[in-house]
Amino acid sequence: MPTISLSLGEKSYDVIVANGSLEAAGEHIRHAGLKGAAALITDSNVGPLYAERVKKSLEAAGYRVSLHVFAAGEAHKNLTTIETLVNEMVAAGHDRSSFVVALGGGVVGDMAGFTAAMYYRGIPFVQIPTSVMAQVDSSVGGKTAVDIAAGKNLIGAFHQPRLVIADPQTLRSLDARTLREGMAEMVKHAAIRNAAMLPALRALAASITEDGSTLDCELMEKLIAANVAIKARVVEEDEKETLGVRAFLNFGHTLGHGIEASVPLGSLLHGEVVSLGMRAALALSRQHSGLSAAAEREVLDTLAALHLPLTLPAQVDPQTALAHTKTDKKFQGGAIRFVLLESLGSPVLSRKVMQADLEEAMHHLTTPLS
Amino acid sequence: MPTISLSLGEKSYDVIVANGSLEAAGEHIRHAGLKGAAALITDSNVGPLYAERVKKSLEAAGYRVSLHVFAAGEAHKNLTTIETLVNEMVAAGHDRSSFVVALGGGVVGDMAGFTAAMYYRGIPFVQIPTSVMAQVDSSVGGKTAVDIAAGKNLIGAFHQPRLVIADPQTLRSLDARTLREGMAEMVKHAAIRNAAMLPALRALAASITEDGSTLDCELMEKLIAANVAIKARVVEEDEKETLGVRAFLNFGHTLGHGIEASVPLGSLLHGEVVSLGMRAALALSRQHSGLSAAAEREVLDTLAALHLPLTLPAQVDPQTALAHTKTDKKFQGGAIRFVLLESLGSPVLSRKVMQADLEEAMHHLTTPLS
Repeated sequence: MPTISLSLGEKSYDVIVANGSLEAAGEHIRHAGLKGAAALITDSNVGPLYAERVKKSLEAAGYRVSLHVFAAGEAHKNLTTIETLVNEMVAAGHDRSSFVVALGGGVVGDMAGFTAAMYYRGIPFVQIPTSVMAQVDSSVGGKTAVDIAAGKNLIGAFHQPRLVIADPQTLRSLDARTLREGMAEMVKHAAIRNAAMLPALRALAASITEDGSTLDCELMEKLIAANVAIKARVVEEDEKETLGVRAFLNFGHTLGHGIEASVPLGSLLHGEVVSLGMRAALALSRQHSGLSAAAEREVLDTLAALHLPLTLPAQVDPQTALAHTKTDKKFQGGAIRFVLLESLGSPVLSRKVMQADLEEAMHHLTTPLS
Repeated sequence: MPTISLSLGEKSYDVIVANGSLEAAGEHIRHAGLKGAAALITDSNVGPLYAERVKKSLEAAGYRVSLHVFAAGEAHKNLTTIETLVNEMVAAGHDRSSFVVALGGGVVGDMAGFTAAMYYRGIPFVQIPTSVMAQVDSSVGGKTAVDIAAGKNLIGAFHQPRLVIADPQTLRSLDARTLREGMAEMVKHAAIRNAAMLPALRALAASITEDGSTLDCELMEKLIAANVAIKARVVEEDEKETLGVRAFLNFGHTLGHGIEASVPLGSLLHGEVVSLGMRAALALSRQHSGLSAAAEREVLDTLAALHLPLTLPAQVDPQTALAHTKTDKKFQGGAIRFVLLESLGSPVLSRKVMQADLEEAMHHLTTPLS
């Protein structure tokens, strides 16, 4: 069973990446040493698909389980939902000896993780990610957050899970668009750490038709494990993003977040704006950090094979997206921190990118691929 | 200048206890090494008294300062107020390089501390406590929380301050009732760690008239420093309340919380219910852990000198208070953890206290002092 271990002192934990691992969740959690009752938190999309199976598996392993389902979607990733979940957990008899199981995509991981971080000032939690983005990225590393009026993810906590269980077979229930947008983060990992994954990602892209039912889960399992290993090493080096190392994971995200914030919630998916942000970051890397044209082309080809957007959709106003970029949290004390590539696998945290460069890069996204 | 240092590894910090230290807050904060802009958070009671002085002191030390005032009172200690504060801080241009200054009593410390714990997943904060309870207890130790419908302090974080500045002169603006209720926590510290403080507390009680204006601030400075030292050592031993040591600080709090939850918010002050809870805990200690009658008497005499309640007020229904005690968070997996005294200065964490004992102890509070 492919298992990646994160070494974080007392906060160390394993990430299990294995087809069929969802059914054995209870066993894995028992083996990881979690005690007490379980609060299983999921959303209205994922709950009907997998909650009963996970609940049964937990009960078979001897845990008392309560189920908490909130309405799916980023629009519900807020403190009001958190308060409802916490009130439900209290009513279900959970105290500081209980733990949380997060079953779902990135929003569920954020919500359940933040709930666990705050409940009685912090109880353990387990991630069972069911989207590509959550399996390769957000479920590992302990970043949890909710949105408020002033912006996305502005309130949150670093709270490491005690175990992550990623079952690639759950991805077969996703539609093609959701699958592909999640793979944008895999392309990002390949670009900053392991360019050898790019051909495999193009092969995987070819196995996706209208939905995930034809997904090559064997290849996906290998690729997810490779991606988690990359994320794990970065998190180990820089658990709380204080050293700049973890900031490399923001490749493509600065302009991506600006674009995301400029359109109505959910009209562009996270991986789609990251795809756009990566094209911009590749162009800036060509200009400022010596990235070769061939390297830029290979990443763009992989994004294109995944049908990810590479030019701004009509609904995005470049000026509005730029304005949002300026209020994004990757700025510090006025200066702009920006992740560039010197070559595939070699990112740098640059301070060379100025206001005017961002404007040029955003404009670049309005031009067709050459 | 009396300074108590807490040794918590990377999270170590100082507590300055000194008359006049409020005016020098900016200097102290600069000396502690805090960088970036300051978000000064206070409430509508304390703001008009001290916010301008603290703001000027911070500005004189070179900090950019924004002021954030929320409506005073436990009723506002909730996630809605937190969200407002965070939105205000974003609008004021604060990012992850800023820090929070909490100016006020326990509610302000909880609110501002929790805001700092969550803002951008955690930024530093400084406590400037202005009530007795906050100076001797809640500002030290990093416990922050808000209330939700299901109960008090159910959502929160352990987030240690980077510095605490306690100026006893601020206590002169309090009314006698508020002053006295705060001193209940000092009686608690004396009971569990340093009985020699009890005569000094009775002397201090004698200096309080209708309000704090006649308070003996020299004696108060010494006593607060002694109290902070007690709290500091307990927190060092058991930062996150996992070992049971920190649980000793809950002496008098289990039944106290139950009583507090059974009446409308604010109708009994925290120290007042702790006084009642201590009388109950003293009686249980006589019964189960061999506390002497003389020891019980000395603590009760000190509480009486402070005009703190020792019999249940008419508004408290013992049955309702008991019901609330049962849902209180000091229960774990069904068993009751209860702090008893073997003698003054020697607490034990007992599991001998059963349901029926709690009922008897609550009944004891309906009988007059013998």
